[in-house]
Amino acid sequence: MASPAKMQALLLREDGFSSDVVPAGQLRDVGRYLELAEVDLPKPGPGQVLIKVTASMVNPSDLMFIQGGYGQPRIKGAPAGFEGIGQVVSGNGFMAARVKGKRVSFVAGPAGSGAWAQYAVADATTVIKLRNDVAVEDGAALIVNPLTAAAMVEMVPDGGAFVASGAASQLGKLMAGYAKDSGKRMIGLVRRDAPMEALKALGAKEVLNETGKDFTAELKAVLKAEKPTIFLDCIAGSVSARVFNAMGNDSRWVVYGKMTSEPPEILEPGKLIFMRKKIEGFWLVTWMGRTGLLKKLAAIRKVQARFADGRWKTDISARLPLGKAMQDLPEALNASDGKVMITMG
Amino acid sequence: MASPAKMQALLLREDGFSSDVVPAGQLRDVGRYLELAEVDLPKPGPGQVLIKVTASMVNPSDLMFIQGGYGQPRIKGAPAGFEGIGQVVSGNGFMAARVKGKRVSFVAGPAGSGAWAQYAVADATTVIKLRNDVAVEDGAALIVNPLTAAAMVEMVPDGGAFVASGAASQLGKLMAGYAKDSGKRMIGLVRRDAPMEALKALGAKEVLNETGKDFTAELKAVLKAEKPTIFLDCIAGSVSARVFNAMGNDSRWVVYGKMTSEPPEILEPGKLIFMRKKIEGFWLVTWMGRTGLLKKLAAIRKVQARFADGRWKTDISARLPLGKAMQDLPEALNASDGKVMITMG
Repeated sequence: MASPAKMQALLLREDGFSSDVVPAGQLRDVGRYLELAEVDLPKPGPGQVLIKVTASMVNPSDLMFIQGGYGQPRIKGAPAGFEGIGQVVSGNGFMAARVKGKRVSFVAGPAGSGAWAQYAVADATTVIKLRNDVAVEDGAALIVNPLTAAAMVEMVPDGGAFVASGAASQLGKLMAGYAKDSGKRMIGLVRRDAPMEALKALGAKEVLNETGKDFTAELKAVLKAEKPTIFLDCIAGSVSARVFNAMGNDSRWVVYGKMTSEPPEILEPGKLIFMRKKIEGFWLVTWMGRTGLLKKLAAIRKVQARFADGRWKTDISARLPLGKAMQDLPEALNASDGKVMITMG
Repeated sequence: MASPAKMQALLLREDGFSSDVVPAGQLRDVGRYLELAEVDLPKPGPGQVLIKVTASMVNPSDLMFIQGGYGQPRIKGAPAGFEGIGQVVSGNGFMAARVKGKRVSFVAGPAGSGAWAQYAVADATTVIKLRNDVAVEDGAALIVNPLTAAAMVEMVPDGGAFVASGAASQLGKLMAGYAKDSGKRMIGLVRRDAPMEALKALGAKEVLNETGKDFTAELKAVLKAEKPTIFLDCIAGSVSARVFNAMGNDSRWVVYGKMTSEPPEILEPGKLIFMRKKIEGFWLVTWMGRTGLLKKLAAIRKVQARFADGRWKTDISARLPLGKAMQDLPEALNASDGKVMITMG
């Protein structure tokens, strides 16, 4: 099966970084950042593979990236999209030969040519050969959220508890099950009552609605009972600051996303001194770079097994054909807690 | 020489903690927190020594402690004061016998009976036998500031640079010399022009006045040239937040004091994620508990040698007799960057 010379892709319209960024959930003007165009197929370089994309995900990190608010610079005219599923059609080197013709999960984006396109380029060492029992939507979302969830829950001490903000998200749902199976207690924070029961059913020990009038008292009681030492936070706002301030000795506020525009305060800096509390970040790219290959492969196997046997599944809220993605994306993002997937058809 | 039955001491008037705390430099109403009284001599317990105090220091940590804003609870009616110099007059156990009759530096406070008194109690393992060539004022201030300065500068990578706020303080001066001798570059931040030259003479590579109109541009240029990765901060205010925000990849904001009442902001939480920046605290009590005995003894020897040979000296701005300390303390604290010492006479 020969590849065509041209492909459809969603291309970045701006270069580099920008500080003019709205939180992922509030993005409406997609046309400012992306354009649908027909371009030449990307050419894989040394150690890279060319992938015929089946479907790709829209993650919060993508929405930050296209605005210039992510940790890697944009390249104008390059296809966007970090993550997808597809078939390896060609490649260079030994590692590429290992996966040629296989169905794989991959991360692309700044390292290659992005996933929101009919063809993408990824590093051969990072593509993941998929078991037959992994569904398309799970394979399309196998890396960014699941590995982040697994790596962050692994930070929690054995038998310990942690707080997770934005817990109704796809990542929050993944963490709930992973935590329960690891013998760790998740305290999820959400902004509506609706997802609370489902999150408990998935494995969260406690779920609190941070917009409820009794939240402060509920939080205090839960922190006292569960004694969490890690706060996995994708909001980084004023509620985050209050949660961290209420946590006990030796606790760590681990920021992995930002869903508000107003900077959080360190309410009582003395607690950094006398209670040995710390504030830090988590980024999967850093984790990938600092974690040994065997440990990474073990994590990937564990993640894939959870999708294959149904312990994890990806909730898809909308499937948008590539040609209609730009016009339908804002409404789809606004609609639900599930994930939006782009299909290449 | 028999000890008397009674002694003069400055006693704590309140118990436990309080959130009603003013920064150390703004404390005026000393009588709310302390009273001068005659009380029984304290009795050393197992492993403790009784010390006839020659002189004791007034550190910022003392001023936070008496208000209830330090990491250890107050005990109403107990003598205040963390640090001093004196002679061991009695004690229990082998470690006490080792120092009996010797001139020593000591830390007291919550662990025993405080240093702002004619007699104090300290743990025998923590008193430091003084060389004859160490002056009284240096022996009185040998532990809290000097060990903090040494331990914090040791956090800076070899050959690296660091930023220090409140650098006109006694601790800042100690760090300047220690840093230079360790081959590390200190960037001191001060609030007046007056101490800038002296701080450079002591060893600071750069000194910036954070109240100057060109501070933002000066800071940017210095950060670019020196690439500091550690920010040792005793202020924890809005300028601190800006300094940390301007620092580069992998930098750490290490808070060891708080001189303002308004909480600092984390201006760009994304930098915790993408630039691997961190915020933490430093407390000498934690360092003492986590550092091995040999490493601690080596640090203490190094500190004492620096005072003995004159590389370090303690600038005393006022010597207050114990009986007049309460009335003269506010003015003395207000007067200068040097240290206030209480003498037992």
